[in-house]
Amino acid sequence: MVHTRPLTVAAFAPFGDVLDTSGQPDRIINQGLCGRYHDRARLEFGPDGRAGVSLFDAQPRKLPLVLDMVERHPDGSQTFIPMTQHPFLVIVTLDMNGVPGSPLAFVTAPGQAINFHRGTWHGVLTPLFAPGLFAVVDRIGDTRNLQEYRFETPWMITGPI
Amino acid sequence: MVHTRPLTVAAFAPFGDVLDTSGQPDRIINQGLCGRYHDRARLEFGPDGRAGVSLFDAQPRKLPLVLDMVERHPDGSQTFIPMTQHPFLVIVTLDMNGVPGSPLAFVTAPGQAINFHRGTWHGVLTPLFAPGLFAVVDRIGDTRNLQEYRFETPWMITGPI
Repeated sequence: MVHTRPLTVAAFAPFGDVLDTSGQPDRIINQGLCGRYHDRARLEFGPDGRAGVSLFDAQPRKLPLVLDMVERHPDGSQTFIPMTQHPFLVIVTLDMNGVPGSPLAFVTAPGQAINFHRGTWHGVLTPLFAPGLFAVVDRIGDTRNLQEYRFETPWMITGPI
Repeated sequence: MVHTRPLTVAAFAPFGDVLDTSGQPDRIINQGLCGRYHDRARLEFGPDGRAGVSLFDAQPRKLPLVLDMVERHPDGSQTFIPMTQHPFLVIVTLDMNGVPGSPLAFVTAPGQAINFHRGTWHGVLTPLFAPGLFAVVDRIGDTRNLQEYRFETPWMITGPI
């Protein structure tokens, strides 16, 4: 049984980046009307890949949920940007000699996007509210760029939201 | 006086890409739970640049508004992804031998993101509702990558929203 926890920069650091507008902007642009929080994700697309922007429309899930698999992308990072102000669930695990460890489950705050660093084990996109609409910045390329791992004993992920 | 019009793929084609989930997804992923609308933006970051993801927090504006300048980025594309379901204003002009022509003003529908192709004259980010929160995928690099043009006679942009 895994309980969700709030997403924080420190707790998520081993897995990726939290993009939000906490703190001061790096720059003020547009004649003072806009704060720019600059270059907040460690992007990788590999030597043969390039950046692309795709939209994902995912069905919302309810807690508790059964987590039976995770995946990772060996050739690139993957940024998930919610196009709503709804929180979503971010499931990750450390890598233990090539297989995923025990999962952690984070719930985002409104206005937070996340970037999985290249090779981070993670659950599939898991919105908690409709519409489950996201922009995704990830690697466009010819390799499969996907490893999946099915847990022998599924994990139960439960609240609080 | 310029009146706003709804954002459509066809009308916006000379300026950039409209990213939305109209029509069928290119792929169904995550065991049938998610549609992927794949690689929907023509991204360019130039030979010396790279992709970055930044967040912009911009003050909402009200119509009618005075448009006194536009800008363009000669070295890269710029994708604006709203992190809310609010419409926003997208102002563009064609290039007329190095200077901007008459502006067009588009209002997005909820769930639409846009990508300005490299070198497209555009107004600064103009949310119409708070929070004016966007993820921006654009070029990170050492050049200035900015040209601004101030209109001798400002334009008035008015509704409908």
